[in-house]
Amino acid sequence: MKVICSQKSLENGTQIVQKAISTKLGLPIYNGILFEVTNDNRIHLFATDSEIGIDYYIPAQIIEHGEVVIPNKIFSDLIRKFSEGNIEIESDKDNVIHIKEEDVSNYKIFGFPAEDFVTFPNIQSKIKIKLTQKILKDTLQEVIFASSRDESRSFLNGILFKNVEKGLEVAATDSHRLALKKIKLTGKNKIETDSQFEVIIPQRALTELSKLLTFEDDSIVEIDLGEKQVNFTINSEGGKDKIRLFSRIIDGQFPDYNQIIPRQFKAIITVNTEEFRQKMERITLFVKEDLNTIRLETHIFAQQPGENRGQLILKAKTPDIGDANEQIPCLVDGEYIEISFNSRYINDVLRVIKTDQTEIKLNENLNPAMINPLSKDEQYSYVLMPVRMD
Amino acid sequence: MKVICSQKSLENGTQIVQKAISTKLGLPIYNGILFEVTNDNRIHLFATDSEIGIDYYIPAQIIEHGEVVIPNKIFSDLIRKFSEGNIEIESDKDNVIHIKEEDVSNYKIFGFPAEDFVTFPNIQSKIKIKLTQKILKDTLQEVIFASSRDESRSFLNGILFKNVEKGLEVAATDSHRLALKKIKLTGKNKIETDSQFEVIIPQRALTELSKLLTFEDDSIVEIDLGEKQVNFTINSEGGKDKIRLFSRIIDGQFPDYNQIIPRQFKAIITVNTEEFRQKMERITLFVKEDLNTIRLETHIFAQQPGENRGQLILKAKTPDIGDANEQIPCLVDGEYIEISFNSRYINDVLRVIKTDQTEIKLNENLNPAMINPLSKDEQYSYVLMPVRMD
Repeated sequence: MKVICSQKSLENGTQIVQKAISTKLGLPIYNGILFEVTNDNRIHLFATDSEIGIDYYIPAQIIEHGEVVIPNKIFSDLIRKFSEGNIEIESDKDNVIHIKEEDVSNYKIFGFPAEDFVTFPNIQSKIKIKLTQKILKDTLQEVIFASSRDESRSFLNGILFKNVEKGLEVAATDSHRLALKKIKLTGKNKIETDSQFEVIIPQRALTELSKLLTFEDDSIVEIDLGEKQVNFTINSEGGKDKIRLFSRIIDGQFPDYNQIIPRQFKAIITVNTEEFRQKMERITLFVKEDLNTIRLETHIFAQQPGENRGQLILKAKTPDIGDANEQIPCLVDGEYIEISFNSRYINDVLRVIKTDQTEIKLNENLNPAMINPLSKDEQYSYVLMPVRMD
Repeated sequence: MKVICSQKSLENGTQIVQKAISTKLGLPIYNGILFEVTNDNRIHLFATDSEIGIDYYIPAQIIEHGEVVIPNKIFSDLIRKFSEGNIEIESDKDNVIHIKEEDVSNYKIFGFPAEDFVTFPNIQSKIKIKLTQKILKDTLQEVIFASSRDESRSFLNGILFKNVEKGLEVAATDSHRLALKKIKLTGKNKIETDSQFEVIIPQRALTELSKLLTFEDDSIVEIDLGEKQVNFTINSEGGKDKIRLFSRIIDGQFPDYNQIIPRQFKAIITVNTEEFRQKMERITLFVKEDLNTIRLETHIFAQQPGENRGQLILKAKTPDIGDANEQIPCLVDGEYIEISFNSRYINDVLRVIKTDQTEIKLNENLNPAMINPLSKDEQYSYVLMPVRMD
């Protein structure tokens, strides 16, 4: 293989596909990126850790056809340090890669044979979902954080995608909280299938996918669901700039979350989102780290009986350090309540709520509560379990 | 103590003095900042780890006189999260500190009695050095990095300040390299003493001092040398905005560096600083980490005998990864030389050289080399030892 390629294209291309590389995998070849020359003056870049894989094409001047696997870390570190301009990359029959800039910079990296690398899987798909980048990225941001980091319960490491009447439900839970988004299938957003489906996609795949998406982009991401794998295609319409990501599907039964979503509440409180976020962040400094449970107390009272203006009171305490107390004016519909939560679970959802006002819906004792953005066409729900009070 | 103070003043003040806090010291009180109300509507802030200390004054509305030590981490984290505006701080007789914002935010932190805290040392000084912030910060940046991190040889952890004819010498060495700056005492810069002095100041004190200085500031920093301690006063002329930093002095004999500074060279090479810096950074990716010695080879040759235009060739090699080769056009005065250095020692000095051109002065075998900014009124020298070639 012998190609000439701009530093910018190389930097951009390696940055995209290297997201699929995981250092967990022991085989050195999979710390590399497959470079394959195509017939239309491009290089096909592909990286994978076998659970997920990303491929992408970059333009190049092709001098000699061929393919080679280039170790990623040293190569991308080097490319980043080159100045803008053309870089020549040549691999010999022993898979040694020669990288040159203007004859005065000569680098040699030991590569791997392309034959030993897997190929991008060809997914036979009967189910196709089409979502705009904006909607998909919003959804992933609102949902992924609620999934579990505990790898021993693999189905909680994943995010559920499920078709429902006129929409798509995307849900994640770590069994202490649940984030649920309903996507209405309007405009370009659609599902192309007649059958019911439920699929659990690993958190890591969706986290890397999310990094490849742009909030402002209205173009379609195609999602092809196969039996054991799922395939995402970004810029599918653009052609040349297409990025594909595949992921395995998690085999398991996602919990029936409809059971735990509360429908009735003892109190519904409405607060200013930004004020709630800031005061929560401040008071979290004073919550006690104890068996990983971080607590705060939430007291709500109306100013006067029958009046709906009230105060949300946050309390936190750490022995040896001190304690803290914040008041937030709110609208209250319901009764006085005293309840404790893991503060991380509240801070997490406040980071993704974009509306000015936030609704907090509470029940007594250890019954589940909800936090929502306040909005008429609200499609996002967050359920969280209280913790026992000290 | 009861005071009202702006969030900005508190944030700024704690950020300045907390640089003296070291987590190494076990006593909890010294992870705190002393707050002392003065008679002129200010609060005196002081933090120390006993080796160094920093104090500063901030304006405040004084409601009740008094003093208390406030734990720094929780307090400064909290202050940073407050919105701009006034914050009330009150300490009670048990040294519990109450922090309030607008009656709706109430925080309580357990403090320490001010009586248990040391006081800022009063240094009896016969020697006073006056340097502008700009010159002092430049000098520290050019010199500190060459001092040793090995705490078992405490005199190499320090930076030497020594008066010489018409100037001040500032030097640091880790025994493999030496950075030496001569400061001409012109304009506001002066030494007020008739006697000879040599003093070694700990690297950590000067690193923290440097963070308090500004490159653009032409105001004077006063340095008062006592027997066992040194005192730096920033904004000494400004009065109100004065910052003081004290440090212990290191007891020891600094190596006689004049002996090791080479006076004759086999080859003197002149290169473009930026090109040398960039290519060194790139090739350093390929140097071998081996017993902490990182190597590169430097070959210099003139294009033609008798001609002074040549090439500096950098070479590096790491088994299993690959190798690298960079050429840099240069001016050569002298002979062909092949020599190896620890690449970190070159990269370190290239980060502080500000001139367009850099001079590299070489000798054969394991004799010391020099790297200098190319400038007529050059007052900065950097000596480095080569390493044995593979």
